[in-house]
Amino acid sequence: MSVTTVSTDLYSEVTQFYAHQMQALDSGRFEDYAATFTPDGTFQHSPQADPAAGREAIVAELVRFHERFADDPVRRRHWFNHVALTPREDGAFDSTVYALVVTVRPGGKPDISPSCVVHDVLVREEGGVLTRSRLVTHDQVF
Amino acid sequence: MSVTTVSTDLYSEVTQFYAHQMQALDSGRFEDYAATFTPDGTFQHSPQADPAAGREAIVAELVRFHERFADDPVRRRHWFNHVALTPREDGAFDSTVYALVVTVRPGGKPDISPSCVVHDVLVREEGGVLTRSRLVTHDQVF
Amino acid sequence: MSVTTVSTDLYSEVTQFYAHQMQALDSGRFEDYAATFTPDGTFQHSPQADPAAGREAIVAELVRFHERFADDPVRRRHWFNHVALTPREDGAFDSTVYALVVTVRPGGKPDISPSCVVHDVLVREEGGVLTRSRLVTHDQVF
Repeated sequence: MSVTTVSTDLYSEVTQFYAHQMQALDSGRFEDYAATFTPDGTFQHSPQADPAAGREAIVAELVRFHERFADDPVRRRHWFNHVALTPREDGAFDSTVYALVVTVRPGGKPDISPSCVVHDVLVREEGGVLTRSRLVTHDQVF
Repeated sequence: MSVTTVSTDLYSEVTQFYAHQMQALDSGRFEDYAATFTPDGTFQHSPQADPAAGREAIVAELVRFHERFADDPVRRRHWFNHVALTPREDGAFDSTVYALVVTVRPGGKPDISPSCVVHDVLVREEGGVLTRSRLVTHDQVF
Repeated sequence: MSVTTVSTDLYSEVTQFYAHQMQALDSGRFEDYAATFTPDGTFQHSPQADPAAGREAIVAELVRFHERFADDPVRRRHWFNHVALTPREDGAFDSTVYALVVTVRPGGKPDISPSCVVHDVLVREEGGVLTRSRLVTHDQVF
């Protein structure tokens, strides 16, 4: 018995998709990030949060969330690892991914926290991969 | 001169294999983890340990190792980086991979330690990739 | 709208290239590392540093940099994440990659610092991928 894999092309597209998607988020390009979701896509950055539905709502939630950094010169980088894809019956894909948030302030050392798991449903359309839904769970909450 | 690469399909299969294999381990699905080894596969989680040989012995070793966490609400995630594959003369592949162990307890911050190197011999059979042997070395021991 | 991706084969080659390139660097095989650059390739490990141009100069710069570790039993591992490739008009590729440096000393815990971004220009020639230029920016400097 071994693991189930998806096609090489799909896996490469998803890996590249995540690289660009998360560099857009970390660069503050929230509209580019939102555009990586389907038009009715949902984004829930923690189980307690209400999901933002639709690109406009996703941008609004990101703007709101980042207000806490308004006077805080901070750089944040979302690292991903072990992208595991599983085909769904509806033609989409479940994607389960480890994530760590790296936070750096001027002259400081990186703070690497929290450890999360990203639970995505991805769709592959003509133009490429899009996120239909994203729920992020946090490892220290249990 | 550049580096030697393996086929795109093999590299994608190995990357996906590791994602599922390590998510199985970190979820406590030890039988699924053991099933990613060949029937006579060996698993040696540190150079001092005796290698566990065969799937049953691998499960037993994992159960034994995790007894230390019986009363410790802990989540562990094994991160991998820089999977370097080199073909062997016997048709298998040497795989050398960086690893970090992320450990989280309720309300706490991730502890990221130790830093390791995974030395695998992988085989690619009809059903997919399997681990024939795994030796993990630890960076702080030298 | 989704993200722009490059071909599956190119992306796989680049990923494998980075795995071997950085394992060479971290193993102290500086000539192997320098050989992953084009003959006139440039390597600038921080914006303040002068770029080393050409393989011989790259080796010399690495030897010079590592003198600080002469009496310091240290292991360093450069982790990469989110390799984002964008085609250039000249046929080369811009590659933007997150990087963290993991440093371990005997008996100690990993120090994970600094957080960087690698800005590469990569070329794909008959023999494989090579780095034409590399500039590393540091997140804590801003």
